[in-house]
This record gives sequence, structure tokens and C-alpha cells, in this order.
Amino acid sequence: MDVTLPSDGEPALLGTLRDHADSILRGVGQVMFQDHPYTGLLFLVGIFYASVPLGLAALLGTIVGTYTGLALGADRASIRAGLFGFNGTLVGVALVLFLGAGPFVWGAVILAAASSSVLMAGLTSFWSPRKGAALTAPFVLASWTFLLAARQIGRLMPQALPAAALPGTADGGSGLEIMTLLDGTLRGVGQVFFQDDLLTGGVFIVALLVSSRRAAIAAVFGALVGLLTGWILGASESELRAGLFGFNSVLTAIALGATFLRFDRASALFTAFAAIVTTFVFAALVTVLQPLGMVPLTAPFVVVVWAAFLAEPLLPRLEAAS
Amino acid sequence: MDVTLPSDGEPALLGTLRDHADSILRGVGQVMFQDHPYTGLLFLVGIFYASVPLGLAALLGTIVGTYTGLALGADRASIRAGLFGFNGTLVGVALVLFLGAGPFVWGAVILAAASSSVLMAGLTSFWSPRKGAALTAPFVLASWTFLLAARQIGRLMPQALPAAALPGTADGGSGLEIMTLLDGTLRGVGQVFFQDDLLTGGVFIVALLVSSRRAAIAAVFGALVGLLTGWILGASESELRAGLFGFNSVLTAIALGATFLRFDRASALFTAFAAIVTTFVFAALVTVLQPLGMVPLTAPFVVVVWAAFLAEPLLPRLEAAS
Amino acid sequence: MDVTLPSDGEPALLGTLRDHADSILRGVGQVMFQDHPYTGLLFLVGIFYASVPLGLAALLGTIVGTYTGLALGADRASIRAGLFGFNGTLVGVALVLFLGAGPFVWGAVILAAASSSVLMAGLTSFWSPRKGAALTAPFVLASWTFLLAARQIGRLMPQALPAAALPGTADGGSGLEIMTLLDGTLRGVGQVFFQDDLLTGGVFIVALLVSSRRAAIAAVFGALVGLLTGWILGASESELRAGLFGFNSVLTAIALGATFLRFDRASALFTAFAAIVTTFVFAALVTVLQPLGMVPLTAPFVVVVWAAFLAEPLLPRLEAAS
Repeated sequence: MDVTLPSDGEPALLGTLRDHADSILRGVGQVMFQDHPYTGLLFLVGIFYASVPLGLAALLGTIVGTYTGLALGADRASIRAGLFGFNGTLVGVALVLFLGAGPFVWGAVILAAASSSVLMAGLTSFWSPRKGAALTAPFVLASWTFLLAARQIGRLMPQALPAAALPGTADGGSGLEIMTLLDGTLRGVGQVFFQDDLLTGGVFIVALLVSSRRAAIAAVFGALVGLLTGWILGASESELRAGLFGFNSVLTAIALGATFLRFDRASALFTAFAAIVTTFVFAALVTVLQPLGMVPLTAPFVVVVWAAFLAEPLLPRLEAAS
Repeated sequence: MDVTLPSDGEPALLGTLRDHADSILRGVGQVMFQDHPYTGLLFLVGIFYASVPLGLAALLGTIVGTYTGLALGADRASIRAGLFGFNGTLVGVALVLFLGAGPFVWGAVILAAASSSVLMAGLTSFWSPRKGAALTAPFVLASWTFLLAARQIGRLMPQALPAAALPGTADGGSGLEIMTLLDGTLRGVGQVFFQDDLLTGGVFIVALLVSSRRAAIAAVFGALVGLLTGWILGASESELRAGLFGFNSVLTAIALGATFLRFDRASALFTAFAAIVTTFVFAALVTVLQPLGMVPLTAPFVVVVWAAFLAEPLLPRLEAAS
Repeated sequence: MDVTLPSDGEPALLGTLRDHADSILRGVGQVMFQDHPYTGLLFLVGIFYASVPLGLAALLGTIVGTYTGLALGADRASIRAGLFGFNGTLVGVALVLFLGAGPFVWGAVILAAASSSVLMAGLTSFWSPRKGAALTAPFVLASWTFLLAARQIGRLMPQALPAAALPGTADGGSGLEIMTLLDGTLRGVGQVFFQDDLLTGGVFIVALLVSSRRAAIAAVFGALVGLLTGWILGASESELRAGLFGFNSVLTAIALGATFLRFDRASALFTAFAAIVTTFVFAALVTVLQPLGMVPLTAPFVVVVWAAFLAEPLLPRLEAAS
């Protein structure tokens, strides 16, 4: 899977067809920070298994995002590493999941995925003097924009939001069965791609193992922390089982526990703390967005990890990974 | 119209009465990025033709904004170029349009226009290490603040929002008549100053021609792109005709197609893309603001062009104009 | 009250027990920018006098905030000066005031106060290339998050918001009695800690006098300006008396009139202008947050003073205090 880099300069093609496929698969893999084509491939397998239209949407979004970066002359190494693809992946899944798969929606996926690449460049440039990264903020911003716009647009008739996508009133307080714990943890990982599916979540964990054992452990840890926080706070069995309290914590845990911070006792504790706080930010955003019929997507993860990025230089106990 | 600059230092007056008038007119012209007093004069003519109170509000706002900058010692060259005036112009028009012309409203115009000058300094300073500009963000922020505050304030009894200011439910899908196209394009340019008037829009285009042919073409192009995007998406005839889907795209097109980017094929395509996306951002902000009874003003344009500013250094195919 | 600084390096303890108490009291004092332990002590006295649980909450929040900073290795001098404590103080008061004092709420205070310390580091780092400060933004962000999250969380059953915390519909227009003026001014200072209590406000003013006469004068001036602005705009007697239109202006006035700007005629006028505008920002945020059942807390003060921080370098008439 090694890729020969062409000399920089004229924005030519990425190379052979195999190179193109490699970059696109890495793009899918980067949704969970994995610069690895097989991880991306397995993520795609997991999505296609759950739903063919969503799989196609993920693929289309990744392709549009990647080639928009290429067309605008973005840094070739970043494109090859899939960094202009992963926001498009998620844009594709979210738009087709929430708006259904009509011709105008596919058009919206193209526009929104292209926008996410411009936002990727913009937010990367915003962070450039500091340690930090755009994360999935381009996806969140582009998807919110197009989903909220759809309410004003006859031709993008929004489907009802999936019932599972919005937490109901918490009845809570019951005991936590071991099956709920298992089920909720796997689905929590699956929900990173908005897949409420046990097996898909399992495939995602295998996909992470292919690339990084620590990332896989962090993902499971994050899903568990989110689920337990939700349980302690009295979330309902169905919410816990659907993994809704977990997927943002999954991303927070991979980001802080296996990607951006040097791993030690302090950063492990901080990651646990951040995964718990992510659950509160999720609940807060549900309150804010519910009147608009909108969901937090992965914004809680972005907010918490951005705060950590900003704080890290002033908190010497946390060291950025080299 | 040449202006002799006094030596910098003690913030004295701008010079002769004619110099003062020149700076204020340029302030009005800068609403569409034109550093030209005749353009500003024609803009004012267009507004006064549509409504005398709105014309007076535009004038008052420009004056307050300009002299606030002067009083606080802001850069003399910027003040002369009208850069501390144009946000005040729009603040004046928006407040009097939405709140009516009572004595407390005129007071609010003065406070809000002065605030917009402080925000102009603040946002210019925010962008200063990067290429970028405050655009009409000071106007949007100051006007949102005072319009939203008015709901809590007995003495700023808000008038009903003009029906035309909020898109209704899109029925859409009908054919697009040539008259709608013409009408909507002209009114789209007029709506930059919130004027739903055919002739006013025409005067504005002439005003742009006086200063820059490319800016005039970009304005018409932006209005057309916005209108066609709205039409394809199923907006209603009345919305299209009122130019509501156009005015933010007008500003995006002038900013990217005739002001901040070096003009070539790549930037022209990017401008078209940005003008289309501006329409979606507009629709999204309508959804967000409708429950608050608030309108997007020119925020969609600001958001899209700010994203382009941030992204430009990482996208070499787009080159900043020197 | 002089403190011997240990050599930097290994994050050891703050020193003697007395040093710990000193840092915590300074933390409470920093809510109104006073690096003085007796001021903090008197603030605490004022809060305990009004309510013992709120006093305990203030103390707990300050302690958690301070020791979180310590545990993460933050700058020792900042911690000693109380800069990692004051946001925790306010977090404690706000959460217990709005959610009541149950066991889960005390847990939320600990999490939220710890979060506020991370945000303090993050926002301080955000401002670091510029003149500026985090102010109470960490408190506002952490409290909004946990208060909004509580709506989704069975175990953080929110109490009804105190009636006094939300302005009602303005009937206004009556004459302003001297007693309302006195009462509203004192309570306006008290509301900085969300205390609707005459005597508590009085104690706070004495506390300021202990540390800085100018800060005390600025506080009273800010409360008066806010109250008069509310009165002119037609706020109701009960709102004015409760000090709701004052407490953000109190903070704006201390920040700009007695802390961050060199004091002269220009900065005094600018402080008055900013205190007036703060009232409008407060009213605007009430409109935005009311549908969410949320209150502006001290966000209006943060927004106005941040705008002034950004603008100051471009407005030479305003000079930052050395």
C-alpha cells in the first residue's frame, strides 16, 4: 500500500487507479483518525452491510471531498492521507440518512461534501499556528447547514428523523443488564457513522484493530464511559442500548487517548474526564437543537477536543503527541 | 475627489466639509465594496427614492459609524475610505425598517451604529494576522443585538416583520418566467440594502457601473445564481420575485469575483459555487432564526466569504488579489 | 498575605494551609477582578448570609477549579492569584441555585467546575497572542452546558427558574423612585453572584472597597447605568429593583473602568457607552435564551468586553492598562 509521491507542483492526478482507491479508503478510515486503507475498507463494509444507499452515500461523499481538495490545489500529502475525504464520508451518510435517497439529495451530498473540503482547508488554516485539527467540524457545519436548509426547500423534503436519533424523556433508574452494556457499547461505536447496528459496530472495532490496537481499546472505552455516564444520570434503556450516549465519547477517547496526546497516566485520566464531559455536552446540544428538529451529530466531540487543544499548551501535565 | 491626507498623529478633523461628505459617501459605497463617492451617492439616491425615512437612517448610521471611528482614533485612511461607515449605513436601514421610525429607534440607531464601529475595529484586528476582512459582520451582530433586545423593551415596540422578509413555505416547481427572472434579479441587488424595489435595484447596478464594471457584472451574476438556485430547489414565485434568494449571493459574488480573489477561471468557478452555497446557508439561517422572529440579514454572505478567507492560504488554486 | 513562591517545576502543593486558603479566597475575589483574599472572604460572607447552600457551592466550586488547575500543571502564579478559582465559584452558585442542592447536583458542580478550569486554560491560550482575558466565559460555557444537559437527565431534575431571574414583559414608563434606585443598585451588585439581596450587595461593595476604591466606584456606576438604561427603555419596577438590568454592566464597568484600560476621559466615556450596550446585549440574549428556559448569566459582559479587547489595538484613544 505504499504510495509513490509525485513531485509537488502542478496538481496532476494522484497516480494510478490503485493510488486513487487508496486515498479514498484512507479518507473513510480517517473518520476515526486511522490513516489506513484496510480500516477504511472495513468501515465501508460495515456501512454497506447495514444499508446499501448509506454505503453509496459514504463513498460518494468521500470521493467528492477528496477531489474537491485536489481541484483546489490542496496539499497532496494531506489528500493522500485521506484528510480531505472523511468529512465528506460523514456528510454523505448523514444527508441520505436524514433526507432519504432522492435525486435532489444526491445533488445536496455533492454540494455539501465539496463545502466540507473548503471548510477543512479553512479550519486547518485556523488551527495552523497552534496544535489542533479541524476534526469533524467541517462535516458538522456542512451537514447542519444543508439539513436546516432542507426545511425551507420543497425539493429536499426531509424524512422524519429516525426515532432513535433523538433521546426521549429519561425514565431511567433501572439496573443495567450485561446485555445492554454489550449491545450499547457495540452500537455506540457503530453510531460514529450513525449506524444503530450491533454487527456494524463489531466490524468497526475489527477495522480499528487492523490499524491500531490502542485506538480500538480507546473506542470501546469511550463507548463504555458514555453509556455508564448516561446510565448513572438516568437515561432510558432504549437510549443506552442504541449507543446514543456513546458515539461522541468514542471519538473523544480515540482523539485524546490514542491520537493527539502522549499516552501516560495523566492523559488517560484526562481522557476519561473528557469522555464523561462529552456526554453532558451531547445532552446540552440535544436541548438546544431539539426545537429545530436537529441532532448534535459529532459536535460534542469537536467542542470537547477543541477545548483540550486550546488548553494543552497551558497545562503541562498534558503533552501533545509528537 | 482626491483627498489630501493630513499627517497622522493628533486625531483632528477629516479636513474640509467636502472631505467629510466624501468619506461618508464612500462609506455608503463600501456596502458593496466600492471605495467611490459617486457610487455611494447613487446608493443613497436609490434608498431615498424607495423611502425617505430609510434614506435618512442610512445617512445617520453612516455618519455615526464614521465619527465613532474618528473619535476613538481609528486609522485615518480607513475612515476616509468609508470603512467605518458602511456597517452603520446598514444598521440604520435595518433598525428603521424593522422597528419603525420613532424617537427611541433613532436613539437605538445611534447606539447600534457606534457599536458597529467598535466591532469593525475588533473584527479587523481579529483578521489582521491573516488575509480577511470584517465584511458586514459588525452590521449583522449589532443589528441582531438591538432587534432581539427590542422584544424585551416596551419603548422599542417592534413592528411586524415585513411579510416579504421571511420566505414562506415553498410551493415551488412552476416554470420560471422571464419577467420573474428580470424582476427577481434587480430586486435581489436592491435587497442588499433591504429594498424590495425594482427601480432601486436598477439604480444600484448603475452605481456599481460607475465604480467597477466587474463588480456590476458580479452583482447581477450573484443575483441570478441565487434566484436560479432557489428556483431549482422549489422556492415560491413570490420569494424569487422579491429577490430574497439573491442578495446574499450578490455580496458573495462581488466579494469573491470582483474584490478579494485574483480573477481567473478557478476563482470564477469557485465564486459560482460559493454563490450557490450562500443560498443554502441563507435557507438554513431562516430555519434557525424563524422561531426568534429574526432574519438572516447578510450573515450568509459573511459566513461563506469568511470560510473562503480562511481556506484560501491552503488552496493554491485560489489566489488572493494583491 | 505575602506568599513565598516555590521554585517552579514539579507541581507540588501550594505551600502551607494558609497559602491554600489564601489562593482560594483570592479565587472568590477574582469574580470581580480583585486579587485580594479579604475581598474574597467578604464576598463569601455575603453569599453565606443570603444562603448557606449557595455559600458552600461557591466554596466547593472555587476549590475544585483551583485544584484542577494545580493537578493539570497550570501556571503556579495564576493559580495563587485565584485565576483558576473564580469561574468555579460562579459555576457552583449557578448550578445549585438553578438545580437545587441534591447529591447529583453536587457531582455536577465538581465536573462543571473542573471543566471551567480546562476552559480557563483554553481561553487564556486563545487570547495569549493578544491583550485579552477569558473573563467569566469558562463559567458561562460550563454552566450553560450542565444546565441545558440537566433537561435531558432524570437525575438532575431542574427546579423552576427563580421568577426573578427572567425579565417579564416590560410594562414600564412609570417614574423612578429614589428607593428603587438605591435598592436596584445594591441588588445589581449582588446579582453578580446571582444574589437578589440588598444587604449582600452592600457587603460586596464593602468587599471591593477593601481592595480598590476605583473598582467599588465602577461597580456602583455600572449598576446605576444598567438600571437607568433599563428604566429609560421601559423595564418594569420589579425588574429594575431586582438588579437584573445591572449586574452585567457592573462587571463591564469594573473591567473597562478599573482593570484593563488606562483610566482617562476617553476610557471613562467608553466605559459608560459599553455599560449601556451591555444592557442591550443582555436583553437580546434574554430573547434568544428564553425559549430554552435559559438565562444569559454573565455572557453579555463577556461579549462586550471581548469586543473591546479585540478593538483596542486599532482604537488608539483607548489604551490598555500596563
